[in-house]
Amino acid sequence: MRERLIAASRRATESPRLQVVVLGAGFAGLSAIKALARAAVDIKVVDRHNYHLFQPLLYQVATAGLSPAEIAMPIRSILSVQRNTKVLLGRVTGIDLRRREVEIEGGRVYYDTLIVATGASHAYVGHNEWESVAPALKTIEDATGIRRKILIAFERAEMTQSPDERRRLLNFVIIGGGPTGVELAGAIAELARKVLTADFRNIDPHDARIILIESNPRVLPNFPEKLSYSAKQALEGLGVEVRVGKVATTCDVDGVVIADSSCKVASETAPVLKPRLAITERIEARTILWAAGVAASPSAKWLNAQADRVGRVIVGPDLTLPGHPEVFVIGDTAAVLDKVGKFLPGTAPVAKQQGRYVAQLIRARLSERRMPAHFSYRHHGSLATIGRGTAVAEFGRLQLSGRIAWLLWGAVHVLFLIGFRNRIAVLLDWLWAYFTFGRGSRLITGTAVEDGREPPIGVTAAVDGAVAGESMRL
Amino acid sequence: MRERLIAASRRATESPRLQVVVLGAGFAGLSAIKALARAAVDIKVVDRHNYHLFQPLLYQVATAGLSPAEIAMPIRSILSVQRNTKVLLGRVTGIDLRRREVEIEGGRVYYDTLIVATGASHAYVGHNEWESVAPALKTIEDATGIRRKILIAFERAEMTQSPDERRRLLNFVIIGGGPTGVELAGAIAELARKVLTADFRNIDPHDARIILIESNPRVLPNFPEKLSYSAKQALEGLGVEVRVGKVATTCDVDGVVIADSSCKVASETAPVLKPRLAITERIEARTILWAAGVAASPSAKWLNAQADRVGRVIVGPDLTLPGHPEVFVIGDTAAVLDKVGKFLPGTAPVAKQQGRYVAQLIRARLSERRMPAHFSYRHHGSLATIGRGTAVAEFGRLQLSGRIAWLLWGAVHVLFLIGFRNRIAVLLDWLWAYFTFGRGSRLITGTAVEDGREPPIGVTAAVDGAVAGESMRL
Repeated sequence: MRERLIAASRRATESPRLQVVVLGAGFAGLSAIKALARAAVDIKVVDRHNYHLFQPLLYQVATAGLSPAEIAMPIRSILSVQRNTKVLLGRVTGIDLRRREVEIEGGRVYYDTLIVATGASHAYVGHNEWESVAPALKTIEDATGIRRKILIAFERAEMTQSPDERRRLLNFVIIGGGPTGVELAGAIAELARKVLTADFRNIDPHDARIILIESNPRVLPNFPEKLSYSAKQALEGLGVEVRVGKVATTCDVDGVVIADSSCKVASETAPVLKPRLAITERIEARTILWAAGVAASPSAKWLNAQADRVGRVIVGPDLTLPGHPEVFVIGDTAAVLDKVGKFLPGTAPVAKQQGRYVAQLIRARLSERRMPAHFSYRHHGSLATIGRGTAVAEFGRLQLSGRIAWLLWGAVHVLFLIGFRNRIAVLLDWLWAYFTFGRGSRLITGTAVEDGREPPIGVTAAVDGAVAGESMRL
Repeated sequence: MRERLIAASRRATESPRLQVVVLGAGFAGLSAIKALARAAVDIKVVDRHNYHLFQPLLYQVATAGLSPAEIAMPIRSILSVQRNTKVLLGRVTGIDLRRREVEIEGGRVYYDTLIVATGASHAYVGHNEWESVAPALKTIEDATGIRRKILIAFERAEMTQSPDERRRLLNFVIIGGGPTGVELAGAIAELARKVLTADFRNIDPHDARIILIESNPRVLPNFPEKLSYSAKQALEGLGVEVRVGKVATTCDVDGVVIADSSCKVASETAPVLKPRLAITERIEARTILWAAGVAASPSAKWLNAQADRVGRVIVGPDLTLPGHPEVFVIGDTAAVLDKVGKFLPGTAPVAKQQGRYVAQLIRARLSERRMPAHFSYRHHGSLATIGRGTAVAEFGRLQLSGRIAWLLWGAVHVLFLIGFRNRIAVLLDWLWAYFTFGRGSRLITGTAVEDGREPPIGVTAAVDGAVAGESMRL
């Protein structure tokens, strides 16, 4: 078999066309592939899913606004007309830099040029045990799991006879006040206060408390201060409790303990010496969602490369792996400094621009043209939405909030969705939700086993360790 | 606790309004509930899912045409305006006829009048071990599981280097030639021959073989003979191999063995005595789908009632349980004879008419009016679709096939879908698919563990027991 593999590699190297392998069909990988559509290269793209996911709208799947198929598009469909590209469904297990081969379960793929764009997943900063009680939002399965968790909490609250348990079930804690956390909190608040109002008989969904925890002194810390303030106001208008300067110190199936985020932060704002024992507070909650941190895919390990704190590969100014001009690392997997010495954020625009830059560089190498040997990111703006009719937007000096920012947010997101059909479907869902306060995707599907507490679907939501033996008020 | 339960029951009996409990929010249960909207009754509906499922279109979810949310609607939304009705999410575990209580995991519900409409699930007629290799189509989870199975088969075929394995992966066997089997076979044939054509580089999806097995001498045995013939022609036009008069005698992960369906059938058509050992044939296939039989929910056991061969409760002409005028059994759970002494089929029109009849009877009892003491089903017609542009329809003497039957089929199904939004969404998807041959929901999601062979999602489709150690042709 060994011989066969080597023979396969040899055959590949004998091909007259440059063999480009792209790992990951996210924003970064796809934009590189598309920009190479007319180049004289053979491309193979490897992804562990058969679809490209439009992650900026994933929170809407988690909060029953959209269906998975509306924000995901089969990679094969997207690339079916690009005849220089093959799609391989598979999980990468390693990279052999010497042989120039990517190891996939069940086989190996030879490359002349490699583009690593495997993205990031959530990180629990030293508390991996929290993953089971505080799920994060990175994949379609995460989103439908969170949707199930939220909807089952309301169902259980309707059933239980214990006022304490009811309160716990109607408390929703979101840890992390970046765009994902803000969008989740706003969407859950709307679900409770606008969508579900008439649906229950024993509970009033208005009683739900939605609590957003952020360690920085303000939500959306990467946005201008004024917009953080607008976002906080809009969230509070929806009934979200915004708790800034706080971190979770404990997460369990019954709730979280939060404390002041750090003595360092506290001393920056207050000159008084804080006691080492921070004041803590316990919030009882059955639903805790994690939106506080990401970690890069294990590509640094595969590449045996230097990584930053969250596992991103430190690349050169031209996005290549130091010492390996044939290997590019882009998107959320790469740690790239901007002009002022700050790391670029893990956003779709950064990923897309990097993909296009790398494709340009590969084409320049093929035709032996010269081009700028460093990537530079052009920031056009930032957007985050809070709820129906409210968003914040920043375009350099132009800062918007409220309805106009929201319309802009909607337009940008629909435009960037891949596929005409998805655009129409998402628009239709949004218009429907806007005018009726209805949500089309309120399905509890799949089987929940994560924490051993949630019953498999189809099993009554009233079965509950804390109130076992209790008779339902029916 | 015992005391509390009894107290709860007493309180309920003291209520001045009739306590109606409905088990199941399918077509039968929902139509009964809606017809009781203005009656002076308190209704509680118990369902193990939080949504009503439009089962006639479930095969389109399984074949990537529609999204789950398009054919499912939250029960709470449907009934939110009906203030005399409470929705309970829960699984029924038993019925106490003496106390008039339904046992649900975690509690009990008292009733004055009970409507059992818990439907049916698939049955493997003595071969329960086939369930893991030949999944059937009854729930949303079944549908997304089958969708994953079909799509992964093409992905694996693209990856494998073994011609035998590739052939096995591209063989799809559907057991059962009723409407579900016919619709599945047609939709898979279209997926292979129209939708996926341009998406692969190593395989030609046209090479897929779709084989439909039916034990009767013709497909759609409940339809007029002429329409069975039209359906067979249409299926063969799409490239489906139709094998009638055959039954599966073995199902395993590598394929099926089929044999002549029975000596009895054979001797009816041919006067020659058949040898006892039927001629068998093995079809190698990685995807086997079961559309051959249903069994009623365990309600006969709960009610300690007489049941027919497939577990349906034998009810009186007024759909009550013999000896229990306060208990109705309707829909797929009930065995009801029609005028000519044949059992009514398990279809949506039968279920809906039974639900309305029972509601009428309950209202008549309340006002002490008299009404016909027997349910009679009015047959309006039957419809089945084969593929894009072809269907068969029967309305008494009017028998249609081809495009006009298909348009009718589409119109009827969209009209009967619950919810304006769902109608628009499904129409949009169908128009899209019709004009572009695209399918919007080609997502491989969830985790497949049923047969231990299918890798969890995100794992390469190339890992395969039969070809382990093989290197991919990449």
